[in-house]
Formats: sequence, C-alpha cells, structure tokens
Amino acid sequence: MPKRQIYLEDIPLEEARARLQTALERAGRSRPLAGESVPLEEALGRVTAGPVRARRSSPHFHCAAMDGYAVRAAATVSARETQALPLRLGADAFPVNTGDPLPENTDAVIMIENVNQPDADRILIYASVAPWQYVRLMGEDMVETETVLQVNHQMRPVDIGALAGCGHSEVAARRKPRALILPTGSEMLPHNQQPKRGQLTEYNSLILGNQIRAAGGEAVVTDIVPDDFAALRAALQGAIAEEPDLILLLSGSSAGAHDFSAAAIGELGELLAHGIAVRPGHPVVIGMAADIPVIGIPGYPVSAALTGELFVLPLIRQWLGLQTPPAATADAVSTRKIVSPTGDDDFVRVALAEIDGRLQATPLQRGAGVITSLVRADGLAHIPRFHEGLDRGAALKVALYQPLASIRRTAMIMGSHDPMLDLLATHLRLRAPENRIVSVNVGSIGGLIALRRGEAHLAGCHLFDPDSATYNLPYLSRYLRDEAVTLVTFAHREQGLILPDGNPLGITSIADLRGARYINRQRGAGTRLLFDHLLGQHELSPEEVAGYEHEEYTHLAVAAAVADGIGDCGMGLRSAAEAMGLDFIGLTWERFDLAIPRRFLETAPVAALLDTLRDGAFISDLGGQSGYRSDETGQIVI
Amino acid sequence: MPKRQIYLEDIPLEEARARLQTALERAGRSRPLAGESVPLEEALGRVTAGPVRARRSSPHFHCAAMDGYAVRAAATVSARETQALPLRLGADAFPVNTGDPLPENTDAVIMIENVNQPDADRILIYASVAPWQYVRLMGEDMVETETVLQVNHQMRPVDIGALAGCGHSEVAARRKPRALILPTGSEMLPHNQQPKRGQLTEYNSLILGNQIRAAGGEAVVTDIVPDDFAALRAALQGAIAEEPDLILLLSGSSAGAHDFSAAAIGELGELLAHGIAVRPGHPVVIGMAADIPVIGIPGYPVSAALTGELFVLPLIRQWLGLQTPPAATADAVSTRKIVSPTGDDDFVRVALAEIDGRLQATPLQRGAGVITSLVRADGLAHIPRFHEGLDRGAALKVALYQPLASIRRTAMIMGSHDPMLDLLATHLRLRAPENRIVSVNVGSIGGLIALRRGEAHLAGCHLFDPDSATYNLPYLSRYLRDEAVTLVTFAHREQGLILPDGNPLGITSIADLRGARYINRQRGAGTRLLFDHLLGQHELSPEEVAGYEHEEYTHLAVAAAVADGIGDCGMGLRSAAEAMGLDFIGLTWERFDLAIPRRFLETAPVAALLDTLRDGAFISDLGGQSGYRSDETGQIVI
Repeated sequence: MPKRQIYLEDIPLEEARARLQTALERAGRSRPLAGESVPLEEALGRVTAGPVRARRSSPHFHCAAMDGYAVRAAATVSARETQALPLRLGADAFPVNTGDPLPENTDAVIMIENVNQPDADRILIYASVAPWQYVRLMGEDMVETETVLQVNHQMRPVDIGALAGCGHSEVAARRKPRALILPTGSEMLPHNQQPKRGQLTEYNSLILGNQIRAAGGEAVVTDIVPDDFAALRAALQGAIAEEPDLILLLSGSSAGAHDFSAAAIGELGELLAHGIAVRPGHPVVIGMAADIPVIGIPGYPVSAALTGELFVLPLIRQWLGLQTPPAATADAVSTRKIVSPTGDDDFVRVALAEIDGRLQATPLQRGAGVITSLVRADGLAHIPRFHEGLDRGAALKVALYQPLASIRRTAMIMGSHDPMLDLLATHLRLRAPENRIVSVNVGSIGGLIALRRGEAHLAGCHLFDPDSATYNLPYLSRYLRDEAVTLVTFAHREQGLILPDGNPLGITSIADLRGARYINRQRGAGTRLLFDHLLGQHELSPEEVAGYEHEEYTHLAVAAAVADGIGDCGMGLRSAAEAMGLDFIGLTWERFDLAIPRRFLETAPVAALLDTLRDGAFISDLGGQSGYRSDETGQIVI
Repeated sequence: MPKRQIYLEDIPLEEARARLQTALERAGRSRPLAGESVPLEEALGRVTAGPVRARRSSPHFHCAAMDGYAVRAAATVSARETQALPLRLGADAFPVNTGDPLPENTDAVIMIENVNQPDADRILIYASVAPWQYVRLMGEDMVETETVLQVNHQMRPVDIGALAGCGHSEVAARRKPRALILPTGSEMLPHNQQPKRGQLTEYNSLILGNQIRAAGGEAVVTDIVPDDFAALRAALQGAIAEEPDLILLLSGSSAGAHDFSAAAIGELGELLAHGIAVRPGHPVVIGMAADIPVIGIPGYPVSAALTGELFVLPLIRQWLGLQTPPAATADAVSTRKIVSPTGDDDFVRVALAEIDGRLQATPLQRGAGVITSLVRADGLAHIPRFHEGLDRGAALKVALYQPLASIRRTAMIMGSHDPMLDLLATHLRLRAPENRIVSVNVGSIGGLIALRRGEAHLAGCHLFDPDSATYNLPYLSRYLRDEAVTLVTFAHREQGLILPDGNPLGITSIADLRGARYINRQRGAGTRLLFDHLLGQHELSPEEVAGYEHEEYTHLAVAAAVADGIGDCGMGLRSAAEAMGLDFIGLTWERFDLAIPRRFLETAPVAALLDTLRDGAFISDLGGQSGYRSDETGQIVI
C-alpha cells in the first residue's frame, strides 16, 4: 500500500488537457468513435458517423402537387375564360389526388377548384396550363446520391424524416461513448439507503452519470468500492477488463490517508496529472490505464460537477464528433468582492438579476460541498489564473445556465429569508411562470444596504425598533434616506424559543436561558435584534448567554442545531421548530415586510411578484401555515 | 361517407390556438399533468410536479471539511508559531478524514499540513484555531424541510444529485404526455419497405413522434390507416379508447377526395377549426373527441413539421408545466424578394451567413414538400399576417436553428453547385469543425451576381467563353468589374451526355440529338452555356432540340430525369451519370473555379475553406472520384 501523499500538484488546466490529449492520441483514442447501424426510430440525438447520401430520390416519381386532374399541357392551349375546353375523363384528363403519380402522357395538373364537371365523362377547363404546373418533379426534394446529412451531425426530428424519405431505415451513427463510474468511500451509502451518523449518501455518480447521458454517452455505475487500496486496485482492474471508453473514480482523488485513486492508476497505468489548478475541483487525477483514460473525480459535489464539465464532457463530445457548443455569456457586475487563489482558474457560481439595466451577479456560497450553489446558479463566472479576484462592482463575464430572457424577468430579493418566500416563488411559478424570484439571504439590514447599492429589487426585513415599538419603518429612514421606498407587508410570523423535543431543561422564557447553550443568529439578522431586545427586557447581558457567539444564518439552521443537540435553545420561527419536530414557546408575532424602491414597482418581475402576493390563493395558502398570519399580507405600510 | 369538401377555412393562428385552449379548459385538460413517482436514476429531463423539500439535512452531522485532526478550539488558544502546543491523540486530537463526523467534544479541524507528529501519541500544533474551522456544519448545504427544487423544474444532473443528497431516492415528476399518432394514406408505406411507383414512404410519424419525444412526451405510432372513411373513423375510435392525451391524424387533413380527418373528428367529437391561415401548414384540423384533443396534420412534410412546432409542442410543454423557451433570434436582411399570401402568417426557412458584418438570409426552396429545406435551414423567418412579403434587402427577424457563433463561421457559396462541394464540406467538418460551408445553387452567373450584391463569400462557376476559349475569367470582368476578386480552381470535371443505361437511341454526339428528348439546365447555368456552344459547333439551333425548354436545376436532377425516362438525353457530369447507373459519353473537361472577393480571403470561414481545399487529404479524395481531376485544385488563377 502506498504512503500517504500530502501534496498535490498545481497543473494549469490547459496543460492538464494537453497531457490527456497527447496520451489519447498515442493510444489511438482521440478520434470520434466508429459508427454502428441504428434504426431510425432510435436515431434522435445520435450523431452521423459519415455523410449520409440519398438512396432514392424524393419524390421518386413525378406526382400531383394538388388534388385535381392530370392533363397534357399541350392539349390545353385553346382553353379560355370565355371558351371552356372540354376534356374527356380517362382519355384527356385523369382525376388525381395530391401525391398520386402522373398518369402516362400527362405533364401538368389542374386544380379541382378550376374545373367544372357537367357530366360523368367530361370536365370543362377555362385556362391553358403550363407544362409541369402543380407537379412535384421527381427529385424535387432529394436526388439519389446527393448528400442529405453531413458527418458529425446530431440528428433532429426533421433529419430523421428526411432520411426515411430518401430510402434509409437505418443510419450509421457514432457509437455512444461508454463510461464506467466507480464510486468509492467506506462511509458512502447508495441513495436508497438511510445513512447513519458518519455515513454519507453517494450521489456524485448520479451527477456524473447524468452529465454523460445528457451529452450523448452511456454510463454504468458499479457498487461502491471501500477505502482500501487493494479493493480499489482490483475494482480498477475489473473496470479495465470491461474495456469502456472512460473510467471515472469518484472520491479518493486527493492526497489524504484514504485517497488511493492516484496510486491505483499509477500502478495499473500511467499517472498524467494529480492536482489541477482550478477551484473548485483542485484534486483531480488524470491517467491512462491499458490505453483507457481514467479520471479521478474529487469527492465534493461542486468540484465533481465542475470536473465533469471541464474534463469529462469535452471527452464525450470529442468521441461523438461534436463541437462543444459556445456557452451563452453575458456581461455582469459583481455585487461582492471575490477573492480568488492567484494560481488557479477560479469558477464562481452566481445568481443573476437585471437591476437598473445592469446585470448584477451575486456569488453563491463558495464551499465545494454546497451542491445547491450549482442548483441555484444562474451562471458561472470564470476568474482566470493570475487574477487575484474582483472588487465589488467590477465587471465579469458569466456563462449562463439560464436564458437571458428569464434572468431579465427575475425579482432579486436580498435580506432576511423567510421560508414562505419559497411558497411565494411556487405560486409565482404557477401563476406567471415567465417571472422568477431569486432570494439571497444576507439578513434584514444587509438587505436594506443591498437596496441602497442597487443590488436587489426587494429587501425582506423584520427589524424591531424598541424606541418606537414598530417594525422596519425607522430602519428605512436610517438606511435608505435618499430613496423613495414602498414597504409592503409579507406576513406576520410567530417568533419564539426553539427547544429540543420534550424541552428537557424546562425552559419557559428568556429568563431561563442562563446556563443553557444558546444558538444565535448572525449580526444584522432581525431575529438577533429581537433577541437582544428581549435580553434587555429580562436584564440579561450577552456575556451571560452561553453560545451567544455561535452564529447560524437561517431559522432552519438554528432548528437543525437544536435538533442535533449542539445547543439547548435558539430563537426562531414556529414553522422552523415544527418542521423539525421540536418544541416551541411563542414569544411574539413580528411583521415581515418587503421594502421596494418605488422605481422598481412597475418592472415586470416585481409587478408579477406583488400580484401574486395579493392573490387570494397565496394569501389563503400562507395563512394556513403554522406560525403565519396573512391578514395584512400585500398591504402597503408606506 | 361525407361529401368532398372543397374549401378550407382561413382561421388566424391565434384564434385557432384560443379555440383549442378554451376546449381544453372545458375538458379539464389545460393544466399540467399530475405527478408520478420516478426513481432518481430515470429523472433526467423530467419535470417536478411540485416543490421538492429536503427530507434530511446535508450534511446531516457536523463533519470534517479537511483531512487532519479534530480538536476543541478552546483547547488550542496557547499554541504559537514559536511555542508548539502538544495535543494527545485520542484525548485532545483525533485524526479525521474529509467527511468524517466530528468526534464528541470537538468543534474544529486542523489541516494535516499544519501539524507535526513527533511520536505515535502526540501531535504538535503551531497556531490556535477558531471554533468550526474546517468543519462542514450540519445543514451547510441543505436543511431539512427547505425547498430544494421548485415546481415545474426540468431536472438537470446537479438537481438529481441534490435530491439524493437530501434524502430522496424518488421524485414526483409530471407524467409524460402520451400522444397516439395515426398515419393515414393508402399510398403510404412504412419506411422499411421499398415503395413502388405511386407509393410514398410515410415519414411524418418519425418527425412528429421525435418532436414529441424531444420535448419530453411519449409517442406511439399505429399502423397506417388506408384512405377510407370507415377505416379512419374506426381507427380514431380505437385511439380514443386508449385514452391518450393527444391524437394526431397524419395527412388527410385537407379538403380533397381522400381527406377524411375533419369529417371523422366531426362525427366522433367536435371540429374546432379546419384550415389555419399559416404557410406552410394551411390544411390543419383541430378538434376534440371524448375530451381528447385531436389534431389533423397536413401531409406535406414541411407543413407537418411546422404544425408540430406551432400546435403540438406548445401542448406538450403546457402539460409538462414548462415554458416555451424564447427562441434565439437575430436581425438579418433578405437576399431575395419574398412574396407572402396577405392573409397568412408565413414561415420561411432561410440559410444564414454573416457577410460584410450583416446577417444575410437566403430563403430556401419554399415548397411544402421539400423537407430538406428544414434540414438545411439555419433559421425560420416569420412574416406576419397582413404583410405582403419583403423586398430584397429588407430587414427581417429570424428565429435561429443554429447558434449564432456557428452562423458567423459560415462560408456562403452561391453559384453553380458541384456535388464535390459536399465532399469539401465533409473534409472541413472533420478538419476545422467550428466552420461551416453553406452552398446555395443559383447557377454560375447567379453566383457572380450574388458576389456583386454582397450576398455570398464565394461563387462556384464553370463559365466557358467561346471567344477566348477559357473558363470564368472573362465573366469576372463582365460581372464584377469594380471588385478585386481572386479565382481559385476547385476541380476539373468531365462534362458529357447523360444517357439511359444501354444507350437505346445509340446517341454518340451532340449531332445525334435531333429527334431525341433533351433535358436542359436552367438559364445562367454553366452547363447550359456549354451546351449552347456545342450546339453552335454542330450547327444545331435550340428549336431543333426537343425538350430544350425543359429546365432542371442540378446535374443530379438531369440524371434523374433521364433515369426515369422523362428524357432521352441530358448534359451533365460523369459523376451524376454514374451515380444513377446511366451511360455517359464524355465531351469535355471543364474547370470549376471559386470566385472570391479579396476582402473575404482573411475571414475565418473562407480561410478555413481554402486551407481544406489545399489539404492533401481532400485533393487526393477528390482526385479519386470518377469524372474529377484535382491536379490544379487550390491553385490561384488570378
């Protein structure tokens, strides 16, 4: 068994790709895969392995292009509007329907609308016709031997129709590249099993496998290989024996005690790179074993997904003979400072909205373990090597995951995140699906600052002002003095103490918090302000509350920390406590408002959001949720 | 059996859609379909039937975010760079790998790189750590009960990974809309059978079925129903009994003697529209039978495909809860006058290239039977009702079938079309696939005029000048006097007489054409000029050649007409004769050149085309084709 290797290389992205290409060329595997015969019924999305030529002309005989009568044009020259020409049916004229072959000795068709039929044997015509009028000439569409589809063409419905039309019932399509995916990790469980503490659900195989399938390849996932060098070596050997086009080793690609991918590849083949200068995705392994490329995929899901985009998908497309489609990009400005490691190509997932005519990009959580940052991403910003990052307000180019039209119909909400904003988003999606809501949680005060900076359309806030004993209004004048702002009530919510099931410490009020481990919210959060106010009322200081410095960013995170026994109590919403089956002691009903600069009220997504907010279906749905009141929802405070 | 109905209605597109929507609402079929449970392995591309919430937090316990040692942060405060702090393994510090749960009473992780291990029992650390350093907190990614995917979301690989990560192994996805497709027509044959004269291959079911599958629905195609009212009525009744979401009747939607779709729908349900004011696609039938929408699809393939786009795909998306994605569009100018029927929405397929910074749209063959016009289309121009069409040079908006980046890398060749231009396109595609060749056949002189008008980058020409006994050069000064033009040789080609297999009339030269039925090429074609020249040499006048007025537009079409017995002889390329197994008498070798205004020589697609033309692989492939010489291919004439 190899020694624990602590350090990874820092091979630039392009260098790593070049090494892989060179190795593929040496192995004779850099060219598109050979063709296989595919029935037309299964050809959708497949790629032609060569130019496809017409086997038969289409149409393959001259035929009528209209319903009517086939005639010989030369026999109609004397027909006039004022002097009908009679034609004998079965001798001079023959009834034909669209698509019928022209009877012998005819070369034109008269439309049925332009004849009269005085009796069963004759028709009368009132104008001469030109040769080949309303005739589809043989080969009008395709002529035998002409090229109908080019090589390396991904077949669409009309292409498949055309192939059938010119005499094919099968087509030579490139074989689908076949990837064998080996998930590894002793702590990993398949997703249909319930993980215990210390066990994790293995889902990178679903991400990578589906990336490959969506790109036109095939992916087979093996059983999970335990963290054991001999087991991994054997599994890799077994995979090689199946002769796939590509082997992916999931996890174990770093340099830790249980990271065996690089060593296994090195033993069975040649290691080309271990550690690529990209973030996220640094611990990538690239090698060749028995002339089969083997890629070690990092275990963190964001790294895994981006490694798939950077290394796996280009390979699949190369083998299919397809070009990598140019990503749609847009110019945006960053609403945050972005710090990038100097030596790395840095890929940052961002949420996007158009505000005051500019595309604003807000970086999402950067942790490589946060797969929801990819689920929620509207785009991916690439900060190249040797850039140290970006200042707030700096321009950046974003590869789009969403159509620009949809981004332009996005209402960006920053500030406090209420879970019922997701309910609002659901109603909006059902009611006016061309619009979207994107909500970024920066706390109530952070939201007002974002409005001031022009980074959001709306701010969610529930800021209690002890002096006036009101919510939100005093803070507007404090943070948005120069701005005409409308304040619309979103909901009233019940705030209180979130306690473990059964309330083992018997806490009944703020006064009982002495000695208990409290879970706090972050600075600037409305719930923290409220808690500070209640502490003051009970004449407690923060120093007397254990855990006051433990900050969580959402109600659900507080509830989860209590559920996990990390703390004995937190403050938050009744809805969060009940969602996790926890006890709850209500302390107050607070008003959660949306602050909206007036210049945004008439923009399409904000108008659609407010319409949905005031819709009876939403108000009734919201009012039915435990811990919420909707009797003032949609009302204008100011 | 119903009477033959001659006239169709002219219902505006929006009115027809509105009638269908009203009927769907009445039938309770206008809303997205219900959900069904789908294993995650099969969820790619499926659409969520409701918002999906996390069943389990991810991670569902605090875990190490790095390989290293778990410690209690409070126990590390005295560590300094200059004063190492020893920690006892198994008591103060615990080795952990990424993803391991934090041992009890620890709240931070020290990276393995930052410790020393002097012996088996202890490590030394050199800096204090903050609480939760290198710890992935429970719920960092997803917190139990939070909304992970919205309703009506089409699932991508990362979405499926996220669902597995938060405790799902199945997901409620909208049932796939199921369409039953009934092809009709007594003359129609399945595509795997060889059609005789008068029989046609049925392929619209492949187009419509694949359009539906590509959009996320299911399509089942029945046997072909003969043109018989009772048979169609019975087939429709059988289809209704299977309770699909949608029934399509292919062909038989017009008002001819064999068009029974409208009558059958009328008998078994309600006819909503028969005849829609769109071109192509006018004879559409829309109805409801037993609360199932039934659409009669026109028989011509272009009409069928566009009816699918206009009526069928929006229904499939509606039932899936998906928005119709906004088509990417671009502004172009038309290189041709386009005549549209005033009362109709007119849809025109166009080829696109960027020339002198402007997108030039060239309408493709407009016949509704020309499916290759859809195969070759780079975009679709919509000329709305009440417009009578467009002048040449007029602006038009084009919905793109190709990415704009690819259109910008298109070399547009107009003029004479040599079949070996397709061979060049194949080589270009293999060699420099980011570039494309589009070739539009307008004859040699038409190509030079297109260059003068700035509608093409290159013109293919083989124009013999009897006075100088040279090719092409004299015509350049005639048609492109004010232009700096380079002339590059494409190939030498053998021209001659194309004759039926066995040459039944014993034709050996032009002189033998008296009395034979000749197939001519269109005015402006180089082959026609050559033929006129040869006629003159043999002292024959056009009037003495039967069929002189019968014009075909390509070499292959001439050969096809001879093969079909429409004519006794035509003039064209050896390659065309041999492709169809015909006799050929060579008369001359002509030079086919590409004329290129010099300002285009450095543009990327033209440069790539010329590189490919001069590539040894292409020259040798071309020279190996019967009837071609490539010894001067790529050489500059002027």
